[in-house]
Formats: sequence, structure tokens, C-alpha cells
Amino acid sequence: VLKKKIAVLAGDGIGPEVCREAIKVLEAVAERFGHQFTFDQQLMGACAIDATGDPLPAQTLDACFAADAVLLGAIGDPKYDNNPAAKVRPEQGLLRLRKSLGLYANIRPVTAYDALLAHSPLKPERISGTDMLIFRELTGGIYFGDKGRTADGQGAYDHCTYSREEVARIAHRAFQAAETRRGKLTLVDKANVLETSRLWREVVQQIASQYPEVRVDYLFVDNAAMQVILNPKQFDVILTENMFGDIISDEASVIAGSLGLLPSASVGDQVALFEPIHGSFPQAKGRGIANPIATILSGAMMLEHFGLQEEADAVKAAVQAALDTNILTPELNALTPCSTEQVGNFIAYQV
Amino acid sequence: VLKKKIAVLAGDGIGPEVCREAIKVLEAVAERFGHQFTFDQQLMGACAIDATGDPLPAQTLDACFAADAVLLGAIGDPKYDNNPAAKVRPEQGLLRLRKSLGLYANIRPVTAYDALLAHSPLKPERISGTDMLIFRELTGGIYFGDKGRTADGQGAYDHCTYSREEVARIAHRAFQAAETRRGKLTLVDKANVLETSRLWREVVQQIASQYPEVRVDYLFVDNAAMQVILNPKQFDVILTENMFGDIISDEASVIAGSLGLLPSASVGDQVALFEPIHGSFPQAKGRGIANPIATILSGAMMLEHFGLQEEADAVKAAVQAALDTNILTPELNALTPCSTEQVGNFIAYQV
Ligand SMILES: CC(C)[C@H](C(=O)O)[C@@H](O)C(=O)O
Ligand SMILES: CC(C)[C@H](C(=O)O)[C@@H](O)C(=O)O
Repeated sequence: VLKKKIAVLAGDGIGPEVCREAIKVLEAVAERFGHQFTFDQQLMGACAIDATGDPLPAQTLDACFAADAVLLGAIGDPKYDNNPAAKVRPEQGLLRLRKSLGLYANIRPVTAYDALLAHSPLKPERISGTDMLIFRELTGGIYFGDKGRTADGQGAYDHCTYSREEVARIAHRAFQAAETRRGKLTLVDKANVLETSRLWREVVQQIASQYPEVRVDYLFVDNAAMQVILNPKQFDVILTENMFGDIISDEASVIAGSLGLLPSASVGDQVALFEPIHGSFPQAKGRGIANPIATILSGAMMLEHFGLQEEADAVKAAVQAALDTNILTPELNALTPCSTEQVGNFIAYQV
Repeated sequence: VLKKKIAVLAGDGIGPEVCREAIKVLEAVAERFGHQFTFDQQLMGACAIDATGDPLPAQTLDACFAADAVLLGAIGDPKYDNNPAAKVRPEQGLLRLRKSLGLYANIRPVTAYDALLAHSPLKPERISGTDMLIFRELTGGIYFGDKGRTADGQGAYDHCTYSREEVARIAHRAFQAAETRRGKLTLVDKANVLETSRLWREVVQQIASQYPEVRVDYLFVDNAAMQVILNPKQFDVILTENMFGDIISDEASVIAGSLGLLPSASVGDQVALFEPIHGSFPQAKGRGIANPIATILSGAMMLEHFGLQEEADAVKAAVQAALDTNILTPELNALTPCSTEQVGNFIAYQV
């Protein structure tokens, strides 16, 4: 019997309802394979601000450190977004959590599901067969540099910094992933303008010699923003810094035909975190229309992280069954839509 | 007789060949409408480094100041891109030119041509009717902030700064454009993370009250990167800062089905500059396969800037005729391709 303790930060908007289905699926896995998973629900995001004034209360962070992994739903609320003067924001909790847990590598697989090609805005022949893995640096860069207003109140600044070590540790992970895949790594940067990008190129060029099986390519981020749409099949592993990764990975997500399908893992040297890439989608909250698959697949990535490959494969096969049988939420099945709960039930039952 | 002096910075790669065709078209316009345009060719970019050691020689800058407008081809060469240690780079010339001429607003129209829907990676029903105008701030932000290596050589930094004034001047231009179009302005930023983005939101919110006819929308850049592909028709005017504009405008360019179609204008308080959005495409240099239309349409934007609307419309109609009759370079007409020169000849003849 494998015992694992999972901290659950369901968060805001549709976070709680998609987490509920992912937990259901993980419980089904535990039952079928004879493991024991316990779930420790904690507050983070706007709900945590409302309850405690702090988007990441100390109790939540303690629970994460005490857990074997963290499952996150989504955070964010329009009442904070549209108020540039708000001093406390849900996102601060997420950023502080990433930094505290040392989650320096955010890993996002992007796959085009054949069953869903009709839902993609892209022509099927362009995307069928797409299979890329994006490594986004998650605890450095402009997200975490000094920021503020100038003394006269007339200006603002955000500082972007990177150290060789910050680049090297995620680069090694990306090269290792490329070795087990199709052997191609593309560094996305803006080395023709940014000094930090030139540092990224230097470090990646140096590290490349340790991975002779991996071909390395360099793309400027503006060009990458085109190539991801024009010819997504050219990519295997993409490696990039925090801000570019935020943009390029969300952009790449449109290939799949729904944001509601894409999971992510954020890893570092301690406890890892798993979350869907979509946001809190407040308009959908409580309506049973949120797609739980991205969160369920984030659970599958967690199982892989635990070394439970067979279990992870069972979840992925169950998701594939939902896609094949059209047991899907309205954005993917407008005519005979299933609810969030029905999709979760089906996948849990199939596991 | 209208007399205008145009500085031509043909640049690197395919720059000279596409400029040649744009000049041909502008000369045809001058002849048909009885104007007098003179062209002053100057070096910039890698060719200027090779000839003088400086990507923007003083003589080139002087010629730009002395001109009524600047026509730019493209700059950049792989021998500099792949060398992170290169001290002098072609791009420095372009950035210095933008700063020296005070070209703070880069304006890029993105249109889906019905004749080319088959060439877009996106499904036709998603993009037919797309008509957006992107305002990218061009002389501020992380492009122009302090940058360098840390004292210990282990790190690098790039500073992003914006002042209220820098935001306000381009925001006014974008609002004015929205007033004459469909009355919608979308600010793209990352106000949930960046202080500079929060400054952008504040300034835009303040200015909005002066343009009661314009509806203002706010989108985080990661979401914008999805929306541009998922539903490009929702956009009228997009306003954004320098780095985000670089990425989002190149991304949006895929809608048109070819980079080779999209022009841009860069304006400030002095002389304006017009250039295709594509790069120097060194692999295509001298092969007669480069599409000159983006540069020719940049010439049309120059004519509009001179107040010559009828002349600009004549160029656009001639381009439309080339699209309708399939007088197009190989990326758009693989079976019976025309050369760069043939496309230019046809359009000049039609004007
Ligand atoms: C909510 C926001 C701070 C966050 C980010 O930009 O990292 C989100 O967009 C993400 O990608 O996880
Ligand atoms: C060449 C490069 C410096 C430039 C930029 O990033 O501004 C280019 O990509 C552009 O968009 O004009």
C-alpha cells in the first residue's frame, strides 16, 4: 500500500468543482490499485483573502510542506483584476507559493487529440500529431524582480533578472526530457534584445554538450509565437523563461481545442504541484459546465511523479474514453453536453 | 505637385529586393498622380556593420532626419544572432533609430484577405472578416531599460520602465484610431503581476473618460495570446507595451496566411517610418521568392501619412488585384509562382 498525502488548494471560481472531480478520480485509482491517498483542503487565492486577508495563509503553506504533492484548482477574481489599486491580490498567493516551494519548472504537455480536431481553431492537417512539452521557468525573471513606482509617482518599473544557476537547473530537466522523447529542444528567447536572453543562450549552449543526443534550436519569442501556430508539429521540448513561457504556453493551448484539457506540473527540489492551466473562469462557477479533464490529467501527472505509471496510464485511458464517447462538457459537446460531475463520474468509473 | 523625400534603408537579406519593388510602386504613383518622390538609399543593419562597423552610421541617421519619411526593408543576419558574445548587432541600429526618431507608436493593421483564407493555418470561418489595428509602444519598456551582467558574472538583468507620459501619448493615438473605427480598444497587459502594467491600466482608465464613444477592454497578455487565435474578430484596436506588442503582433500576423502581406507604420512627433513586419529572411535573399506586398503596403501607409488617401487606395486596389489574379510569390502560389519582381511590376502597372 502506497500512502500519499495531497494538499488541495481548490481556490476560486471553478477551482473547487474541478478539484472535486480530480479527487474523485484519484480516489478511484487508490481503490483500484490499493493505495491510500488523503486529501487536505486548504484556502488560497481570493477565497483566502476573503477569509483571512492573506491569499496564502501560513496554515496553507504549512500544509503544502507537509504534503507529498499539491493539487491546485484555480485562483483569481475579477474584483481584484479590475482594481489596479488593490494592495492584496490572489495572484500574490500563487507567486509566493511557487517561490516558497521552489517550483522552478512548470511543465506543460500540449497534445492535439484527434477526437477534438473539429474544436480547434486551427486546420486539422496543421495540428494532428502535435506533441510538445513546454518547460517554463517559474520562480525567476520579471515576475519576481524588484518592482514599484518611481519616487515622483510618474513612473513604474519591473526588473527582470536571471542567474546562471536558475537557467541551468531547468535546462537540465528540459534536456533530460528531450532525451526520452524525440531529441529536440527549442530555446525561446529574445537574445537580439535582452541581456537575460543572452545569458540563457550561453548557459544552454554550454549544457548542450552534455546531451549529445539532443538537437538544440534557438527561436526568438516573436517568431516562436508564429511557429507555434504555423507548424506546431516541429516542436518537441520548448524551454523558456517565465514571462515568455506564460504567453507561449497559453497560446499553444489553443491547439488542443479547449483550455479545459491541459494539465501542468510545477516541480522543484521539494514537494511538487499539479494544476490545470486554465484560470478560475468566474462566469462558469457553480453552473456545472466547467471541464474537469485538465485537473484530472494534472492528477495523472501527479501519479507519474509518484512513480505510479500504470495508474497514470489508467487515468489517461479513461480520459481518452470520455473523448471517444463524447462524455464531455458543453464547450466540446454543445448538442448533448454532460455536466462537470458527469464527466468526473464517467472517468472515475472507467479507471 | 507634391514633393517628398524618402530615406530608404533597405537593410539585409531580402530587404533590398522588397524595397526595390515598393519604390517602383511609389514611382508609379508619383507619375500617375503628378507627384515628385525622391529616394535616398542609406545603410543600416548588418550591411552597415560590414561597411562601417556601425549598424546605424551617422550619415544614415542624418538622412532620416532630412527626409519626409523613411522606408525600411529588413535587418538582421544569422551570423550575429547565433553569437551571444557579439558586441555590435544589427538590431541595435534599429532600436537606436526608433529612439532617435522618437517613433513611439508602431501601428500594424491585421486583415484576413478572403482570397488567402486557404493559406491561413486557421479555419476560414474563424478569421474571415478579421480587421484589427495593433498599437505597440516602440521606444520604452524592457527594450530600452538598463541591461547588463551582474558584477560576479553569474547573472544578467533587463529593466522595464514606463512613465505616465510614455503611456498617455500612444494611448491617445490608439483611442483616436478606435473612434474612427468600430469604437473598441483592448489594452493587453499583465496587470496581475507587473507594476508597469498597473501603471498602463491606470493611465488608460483615466484617458478613457475623454473618449466616451470608445469601449475599453482589458486582457492579460496570456489570455490575449489565446484570444487572438480563438476569436480574432473580437478585436478592433489593440494597445500594448513594447515586448508584448512584439509577440502579439507577430502572432496575429499568422491570421493573414503570410507574413509577406503585413505592413507597419512607426510614428512619433517627427519623421515617420514604414516597414514590412517580416524579417530579413536570409535564406531567401536573391532568389526572387520574397513577397514584396508587405513593403508595398507599407508604402501605401506612407502615402496615407502624407495625406494622399486616393493614392494609397490605388496601391491597395492594385494589391487586391494581385491577390485576385494570383500574381503572387511561391508561398501563396506554389503551382504557378511569380517572382518578387513580377509581383512588383504587376502592382506598379495596376496603380
Ligand atoms: C495567475 C498568474 C499570476 C499566472 C502566471 O502568470 O503565472 C497564470 O497566468 C499562470 O500561467 O499560472
Ligand atoms: C529585430 C527586433 C529587434 C525587432 C523588435 O523586436 O522590435 C523586430 O522583431 C520587430 O518587431 O520589429
